[in-house]
Amino acid sequence: MAGNTFGTLLRLTTYGESHGPAVGGILDGLPAGVEIDTGFIQHEMSRRRPGQSRIVTQRREDDELELLSGIFEGKSTGSPIGFMVRSEDSRPRDYDALKEVYRPSHADYTWEAKYGIRDHRGGGRSSARETVARVAGGALAKLFLRTQKIQVQAYVSQVGAIALQQPWHELDLSQTESNIVRCPDADTAEQMIRLIESIRKQGDTIGGIITCVITGVPPGIGEPVFDKLHADLGKAMLSINAVKGVEFGSGFASVALTGSQHNDAFLPGNAERKVITATNRSGGIQGGISNGEAIYFRTAFKPVATIMQKQRTVNTAGKAVEVMGRGRHDPCVVPRAVPIVEAMSALVVADHLLRQRGSIV
Amino acid sequence: MAGNTFGTLLRLTTYGESHGPAVGGILDGLPAGVEIDTGFIQHEMSRRRPGQSRIVTQRREDDELELLSGIFEGKSTGSPIGFMVRSEDSRPRDYDALKEVYRPSHADYTWEAKYGIRDHRGGGRSSARETVARVAGGALAKLFLRTQKIQVQAYVSQVGAIALQQPWHELDLSQTESNIVRCPDADTAEQMIRLIESIRKQGDTIGGIITCVITGVPPGIGEPVFDKLHADLGKAMLSINAVKGVEFGSGFASVALTGSQHNDAFLPGNAERKVITATNRSGGIQGGISNGEAIYFRTAFKPVATIMQKQRTVNTAGKAVEVMGRGRHDPCVVPRAVPIVEAMSALVVADHLLRQRGSIV
Amino acid sequence: MAGNTFGTLLRLTTYGESHGPAVGGILDGLPAGVEIDTGFIQHEMSRRRPGQSRIVTQRREDDELELLSGIFEGKSTGSPIGFMVRSEDSRPRDYDALKEVYRPSHADYTWEAKYGIRDHRGGGRSSARETVARVAGGALAKLFLRTQKIQVQAYVSQVGAIALQQPWHELDLSQTESNIVRCPDADTAEQMIRLIESIRKQGDTIGGIITCVITGVPPGIGEPVFDKLHADLGKAMLSINAVKGVEFGSGFASVALTGSQHNDAFLPGNAERKVITATNRSGGIQGGISNGEAIYFRTAFKPVATIMQKQRTVNTAGKAVEVMGRGRHDPCVVPRAVPIVEAMSALVVADHLLRQRGSIV
Amino acid sequence: MAGNTFGTLLRLTTYGESHGPAVGGILDGLPAGVEIDTGFIQHEMSRRRPGQSRIVTQRREDDELELLSGIFEGKSTGSPIGFMVRSEDSRPRDYDALKEVYRPSHADYTWEAKYGIRDHRGGGRSSARETVARVAGGALAKLFLRTQKIQVQAYVSQVGAIALQQPWHELDLSQTESNIVRCPDADTAEQMIRLIESIRKQGDTIGGIITCVITGVPPGIGEPVFDKLHADLGKAMLSINAVKGVEFGSGFASVALTGSQHNDAFLPGNAERKVITATNRSGGIQGGISNGEAIYFRTAFKPVATIMQKQRTVNTAGKAVEVMGRGRHDPCVVPRAVPIVEAMSALVVADHLLRQRGSIV
Repeated sequence: MAGNTFGTLLRLTTYGESHGPAVGGILDGLPAGVEIDTGFIQHEMSRRRPGQSRIVTQRREDDELELLSGIFEGKSTGSPIGFMVRSEDSRPRDYDALKEVYRPSHADYTWEAKYGIRDHRGGGRSSARETVARVAGGALAKLFLRTQKIQVQAYVSQVGAIALQQPWHELDLSQTESNIVRCPDADTAEQMIRLIESIRKQGDTIGGIITCVITGVPPGIGEPVFDKLHADLGKAMLSINAVKGVEFGSGFASVALTGSQHNDAFLPGNAERKVITATNRSGGIQGGISNGEAIYFRTAFKPVATIMQKQRTVNTAGKAVEVMGRGRHDPCVVPRAVPIVEAMSALVVADHLLRQRGSIV
Repeated sequence: MAGNTFGTLLRLTTYGESHGPAVGGILDGLPAGVEIDTGFIQHEMSRRRPGQSRIVTQRREDDELELLSGIFEGKSTGSPIGFMVRSEDSRPRDYDALKEVYRPSHADYTWEAKYGIRDHRGGGRSSARETVARVAGGALAKLFLRTQKIQVQAYVSQVGAIALQQPWHELDLSQTESNIVRCPDADTAEQMIRLIESIRKQGDTIGGIITCVITGVPPGIGEPVFDKLHADLGKAMLSINAVKGVEFGSGFASVALTGSQHNDAFLPGNAERKVITATNRSGGIQGGISNGEAIYFRTAFKPVATIMQKQRTVNTAGKAVEVMGRGRHDPCVVPRAVPIVEAMSALVVADHLLRQRGSIV
Repeated sequence: MAGNTFGTLLRLTTYGESHGPAVGGILDGLPAGVEIDTGFIQHEMSRRRPGQSRIVTQRREDDELELLSGIFEGKSTGSPIGFMVRSEDSRPRDYDALKEVYRPSHADYTWEAKYGIRDHRGGGRSSARETVARVAGGALAKLFLRTQKIQVQAYVSQVGAIALQQPWHELDLSQTESNIVRCPDADTAEQMIRLIESIRKQGDTIGGIITCVITGVPPGIGEPVFDKLHADLGKAMLSINAVKGVEFGSGFASVALTGSQHNDAFLPGNAERKVITATNRSGGIQGGISNGEAIYFRTAFKPVATIMQKQRTVNTAGKAVEVMGRGRHDPCVVPRAVPIVEAMSALVVADHLLRQRGSIV
Repeated sequence: MAGNTFGTLLRLTTYGESHGPAVGGILDGLPAGVEIDTGFIQHEMSRRRPGQSRIVTQRREDDELELLSGIFEGKSTGSPIGFMVRSEDSRPRDYDALKEVYRPSHADYTWEAKYGIRDHRGGGRSSARETVARVAGGALAKLFLRTQKIQVQAYVSQVGAIALQQPWHELDLSQTESNIVRCPDADTAEQMIRLIESIRKQGDTIGGIITCVITGVPPGIGEPVFDKLHADLGKAMLSINAVKGVEFGSGFASVALTGSQHNDAFLPGNAERKVITATNRSGGIQGGISNGEAIYFRTAFKPVATIMQKQRTVNTAGKAVEVMGRGRHDPCVVPRAVPIVEAMSALVVADHLLRQRGSIV
């Protein structure tokens, strides 16, 4: 029950289904005095929008965000910020055929098992349309992080088997938005785009990985023992549709290393920070608390479940049937998921910054 | 602030430092009427205990659990269960040398940055000693899951580069406890043990992976959109010391697959379940909700940070110094982490089972 | 931070200011399958509406509620229900004069002290306009309670010094809505109405008491030791604007009684309930848990702070000034607060009914 | 489920039954750096202790508090503070007769209805013995408030019909502890003591009122719209055993006043505060947020349910029987409840002080 709120002090609560009249949310706990840059927020919304390029779904979705409260004379007031995006291009007819069919690897069956009732139109609440509200909430969180000089930047590091070879600090992240797949390396981006286009022509889909880098987080952020910073970031990532895994710093590769290979030596710091590390296999988090180094992690997205091919499945009566994907879907979710990863990360970091304010008498 | 509680309806709150007088916790929300099998609980405690074999730390730790409330005539009463383990073999002198040094890849520096004060003795609250309370709470959760015929079984699937080749369903998980590394395949276990022993002799440490399998979970468990079942399981795993990543079902490998390769076809079910899946790349969870198939996931542990070798670091004055590991530490954390992974998993599943009770009018 | 969510399993989160574009909310955790009677919801809204009679504020407020999600084919789906009421008759000019003045016994000064910024238009978020969202959320909760045969009925039992002499069970509560002050006794109602009219003519305001009766709650609802049923009901009441006190059952009068006078003897019950009580001074709650008897409590509302008289106060520069009430305000808040008291009560009871589902294995 | 935690950022979780091996708790979220004055804490414990005077229960209870974690070199570390009091003088035989009887106006019946199982010994978890943990947690909160120069002082203002006539600011609160009934006026105290003694001799009990005054709270504390400061204080009070009502500032008396009589005029302030009020009918809280004036409220306690007289009741089989109080009980609960009221108040204020830290960017 009641799993539609995220965060402790900065809390995002969302609502809305794929084909309902609107999706929206409430961000509660944003400190008063944050400048609300509506141009920036709308820009973030447009990064998530369908139809933005030839490699994403051509579904038309209105993404005109309306801010309904909590702002006065251009600044946050400390009161909850309600926001909403009206839905326009809903074509429920596209889904009538699926009313009595459980699409493979979709949430149709599990939602019906859970609630005994299911809004089958476009996946209802299980549709990625709900991420509209995450991006809006995350954009507001980013405006708060801006006041703290913290930056959250994500990019596509892998599509199918095509993977960026460089670690994040050897890349120019300012190039991420220069191509439609959101990979900061132009050559790799080109390969990824070609792969996605070829996959789409086959009526198929493909997975990918997004790397996220957060810089400027001061040491001391994160709440042991259960609300470790990376535990909350990890939950944030895993709550995004299609995510199957997340790893921080050295991640899964760390298991094959020895402690002497893996440990990050401390070094005397500089004007800004007393202590720095020689390497950063920890990914900027030690014991669940930020150490001042860059935080980075990778999130794995499985291929989108809707494919334009015939598949075996079962209908609501429990009989074997065949199903064929319809409607307009993403051949690969990662280009549009970049702003979602950033949004959820921004919410976590902002929440923990506020929680940290209570740590010392 | 206040990050020492885990769960929503079934809530574990814990306390205790490595060298304090006790570690303990409170499990609140366990339904009334659960048979409290104290032998089972103590058995779970002993699986986590130091000194249980030659490949784990030889530190002596009392693990005599005292149950202090919430039980009457052998059953839970619905009231919170307080429990405690007294500490005995604390040797604070071992740590005096570390009072003014930040051990590399430990939480010494970040805790001091966070709180401005640090209990340096054995890592204080950042020590894995706190997992005593997780295992106790998890054992109680398992007793509840027993009434629902749900089983949680974890095992070591990789140590360093030595990895089990078989997927979980080709293994005999009843063999997990037959060897000291807790790998259900005898040959692989033998190799893992030899590797850990050799690493220990070098005064070094090594990472590993634990796979966890949960069977018997009915369809419908998990709370969209933020408290997806695997999001909460993932947070649970990432909150355990030394964990750097977690993946569900096909995990990171899924990104290189197409939708047509990856989707799990639905099939007509059987007497027990209306619908089953032909494959289980989803890992038993779709759209954040259990589908009745086995839930499985892998958790990556980095090598333990304490090594018996000289390392560069910085002291509390910000000066470069050298540090050398002391005390008794695990060369590889995964054998003792198996019951911890199970405990946290049991807490999540039990919590979500209770949350599910409110889903339908 | 983040105080705009109410409830544990059934959670209402709200937003909106007096003169913003909309007020609204999200109700998360309503079980799936509740019939959504929109006529009933709109009826509840109209009970709270300004301008409904000559003894309430003549401010025009649109109260057209839009339900935005979580409903499919007339039933709740288990997903969060977003809702919104657009604002129309906002006349911000009425408030320009108050931009730099702290109105006595209003929240102007405290909000500015808290947030360093203040939306002065009509009190901003501190305006009772936010109760629109409470009534909408409460109406949905009542629809759930309807399935459990639980009734929540409030009425005005005192205005100024004019008090109903009969206890609730000697009144015909079906008469509450038969007069504009919402007092079930016609004669007393008439006196109350005359008092309010006379007070209004003086440009003054007057306080009152609302009694609330909840019937049909089964024994066993309420969560010791902190979330006792009456503790959560009491918080719900005290969170309503202008409330200064709340008392359950015998309330403040109980302090002058002895135990032998006050105790409620148990009696053998009937077909429906095993045990009943001879008297009900406990107010249907014992040890924080419902005992199956009617739950009743009284909530005290102070006189509305805005009066049409000159008052001493201080401006934002800290200088002494005079202020005179403007705009359209209620001379007495209790007639319109009846549905708000019911709404908050319904939310608490519904939440606790869901929490109770986890009490027994 | 899970109602044994109180607070948002500063969270007290408790456990323990009347006749179990121990009662205790965990205080999580206390900022690091608070000086832990153990003498003070033990002193607070002794104010709640049975047997402290001739007008309270003569039950012997050990109240030796053991602090188990979260403290290092005399200061809080930011980690959770576990604490425990062992039980010693438990005489379960006193209660054997009550195993199958529901005592009137006790929680015996409702707990059994809730959980289907009941620890009947001394009321189990429903016993006021659980307040040991509240007082311990509250003492720690008071040590934090001490660093903020905030004082919480409660006193007995009424016993039966004997009521203090003066408002709190005309009393010398330093005299509260000078007599065993904890009333700051010596003459009234004497009358109250005589009344309690006479009531006790009759084998009866009597109710009372405790007034609590909190000074030094800066303006701006409290979280609209649901977590208003007095809403959380009110819940805290109502969660204490035997409480039937709570009122803030002018309370129930406010309903008979007009706005012109009731409003607190603002006045230019002084060196410490920009704005003060001429009167304080608001009780130091406006719109749910502190205004810098003294916060005060009154809490009503019903007479203790256990009386040494025969009473009608019902047994667990639903048959009418008679019951006679046994054991050692308080004839009037308010003298020992004074430190409990203070403890709960301190927890609320400390929690809200921490929450306030996130209000402004």
